Amino acid sequence: MGIFSELQSKLSPSIRFMTKSSICTKRRLIFYYSSTTRPFCSKNATAESDSGGTWPRRVVSGLQPTGELHVGNYFGALRRCVRLQQQGDDVMLFIADLHALTVRQDGQLLEERVLDMTALALAAGIDPERSVLFVQSAVPRHAELCWLLACLATHARLAHLPQYKEKSATMKEVPIGLMLYPVLQAADILVYRGTHVPVGADQLQHLQVASQLVRTFRHRYGPAFPTPRPLLPDDGSDRIKSLRDPSKKMSKSEPDPKSRILLTDSDETITLKIRKAVTDFTPEVTYEPETRAGVSNLVTLHCLAADKLPEEAVEEAAGLSTAQYKREVAGALCAALAPLRARAAELRARPAHLHAVLRHGAARARLRADETYEHVASLAGLTRTHPHSALHRTAIASPR
Amino acid sequence: MGIFSELQSKLSPSIRFMTKSSICTKRRLIFYYSSTTRPFCSKNATAESDSGGTWPRRVVSGLQPTGELHVGNYFGALRRCVRLQQQGDDVMLFIADLHALTVRQDGQLLEERVLDMTALALAAGIDPERSVLFVQSAVPRHAELCWLLACLATHARLAHLPQYKEKSATMKEVPIGLMLYPVLQAADILVYRGTHVPVGADQLQHLQVASQLVRTFRHRYGPAFPTPRPLLPDDGSDRIKSLRDPSKKMSKSEPDPKSRILLTDSDETITLKIRKAVTDFTPEVTYEPETRAGVSNLVTLHCLAADKLPEEAVEEAAGLSTAQYKREVAGALCAALAPLRARAAELRARPAHLHAVLRHGAARARLRADETYEHVASLAGLTRTHPHSALHRTAIASPR
Repeated sequence: MGIFSELQSKLSPSIRFMTKSSICTKRRLIFYYSSTTRPFCSKNATAESDSGGTWPRRVVSGLQPTGELHVGNYFGALRRCVRLQQQGDDVMLFIADLHALTVRQDGQLLEERVLDMTALALAAGIDPERSVLFVQSAVPRHAELCWLLACLATHARLAHLPQYKEKSATMKEVPIGLMLYPVLQAADILVYRGTHVPVGADQLQHLQVASQLVRTFRHRYGPAFPTPRPLLPDDGSDRIKSLRDPSKKMSKSEPDPKSRILLTDSDETITLKIRKAVTDFTPEVTYEPETRAGVSNLVTLHCLAADKLPEEAVEEAAGLSTAQYKREVAGALCAALAPLRARAAELRARPAHLHAVLRHGAARARLRADETYEHVASLAGLTRTHPHSALHRTAIASPR
Repeated sequence: MGIFSELQSKLSPSIRFMTKSSICTKRRLIFYYSSTTRPFCSKNATAESDSGGTWPRRVVSGLQPTGELHVGNYFGALRRCVRLQQQGDDVMLFIADLHALTVRQDGQLLEERVLDMTALALAAGIDPERSVLFVQSAVPRHAELCWLLACLATHARLAHLPQYKEKSATMKEVPIGLMLYPVLQAADILVYRGTHVPVGADQLQHLQVASQLVRTFRHRYGPAFPTPRPLLPDDGSDRIKSLRDPSKKMSKSEPDPKSRILLTDSDETITLKIRKAVTDFTPEVTYEPETRAGVSNLVTLHCLAADKLPEEAVEEAAGLSTAQYKREVAGALCAALAPLRARAAELRARPAHLHAVLRHGAARARLRADETYEHVASLAGLTRTHPHSALHRTAIASPR
């Protein structure tokens, strides 16, 4: 039926055995299997050596600080990072304020949203000692590497990316930053020599831009970066649909607020939105995303909130009408989101702590970024007078 | 006849009086008159307050470290900066290694050329204490501000700039960095709140991009930058022609090396190239750039090398044939360039000193760039965890 059971049947018996182990949940195991063919990860695991060397496994992910987060963003991005961290992965998680500037922002609001996002990340379980949590603009190397990569990325390739075409078509004046968006994304990953990137299927093309840039850089200057691999979710978290029109993805840009569940929604609001969710006229609960998008979307949300497989959810819902099942789903979502909401609100009330966390993360991120950039700049012929280099530190004084 | 006498006749008597003063040479006075309507400059002079405040006068200029410099580059860019410095201007002169990357570079060669250019700048008279001499890539704020401005610069505007159209037409694969070139140029100027930029007439459109970005930024976030003004030369130094085809500008990309005089050329080579320079069949020496481009180009070179006005040069050449005049011109060029060449070679043999000069300049440039960027980032909502900010310095330690 679903893709989960299909994938599970593909796993070798030894790997299937580990599905039961305490290290990986069923879902997470498949998640790794489907994206990297390596179910385990550890601090010592290395990425494939197709880029002129072996590279320690490192996950890089970004969160947009624009607007309020909905459950799609949470399950599809933030929670995945938390789970990777829990499995021992080296996770770099940044709040992408530079990316946010490609659309018009209010400066003060942006700062507030960065703190909102920091509180949420901590509430969701990001440990600022085990993972590196920071704001993108706090590490100048993102923008610096972006320029270097912009000199290698072709206009033609960027102009034909579907996300660019789609977004730019709605704008009267297209900022060049929008076209440069995937180049900055590549810099975000490569500046940390990220080997794995949790993405949704719709972001695969942007990751291909990054891979292409790794190849172009290697060809022109020599090996400097691993080729980043996508970590695609298998749990449908990148395909959560609008509650009002399940043919579309859940999105913050849809006008009807009842189309999405926000992380700030109260239990009552969540319950109401799920009750109003568009389904079909078949009362039975089944998981058939192609033909019954509405009900299947509820199953997906249920599974994500309660950490179930669709088969289990559907089995448990046997005999329930869609209306009754909606109460189940709302209950599971409230149970998952209410504690998160409460922890986030608690943390959000301590901005000084959040700032300290971000500064700590930025300091750690800068060390890592500096290491990469010094190497890259040296290959490109830019090293000699670079800040943070040993050369520089010795000679702030006058040369005379 | 020439534009110099025309301009001089436009000057008010009091300003014309100062032509004779010891502070300004004739040419330099006109230079200021034609570009800023303010013949004097001093540390206390301010730029016009059309950008929400008054800004101290500051000159920003960049030198490309690609290929060998010809006399057009020297008289048109480097020497102008030296003269501005000598007049008491606050000059920021950077070697544009990031810009150089928009075309394919050999890393090691690029590093060598940065040192070549540093030696030349010092040999030409740039004082690293009075002016700020540094390498662009040593100041991360250029790239950081470039991203911020890229979010405000429209694709349409950049795609229609003549230099972009011309350059991209010759390329099979156009890097997006080439389109972004004027945005990085704007960042180069604005990150130091440059008020005046020595440019040639062909770069005015790029400066207009910078001015437009100042307006757009002000409109979106508030005033942060002065509108940079062009300092156009009046001495023809931005219109030095090819010696082989005086209808074209002197250029390093012309195949025939006899078309240009390099700063590394020996006296013999200079003399030979001038002797072979294309003129016309009239033996008399006149200055008529429109109708007698070849001879007039020799007059321009003569004037630049010997610090004369065309009228004077032509008067002195009365009775000389073009062939005889060429010996005069070659002599003047050798007299001007031989000492420069010798000083540059001497300095070039001391790379450790050059590195120290560049580090010193970079440290000073970073302080200035940080000041601007902290303000700009704060307006755009990016400040809180920024490196170099007071907040950051206090909290490298763990937040726990």
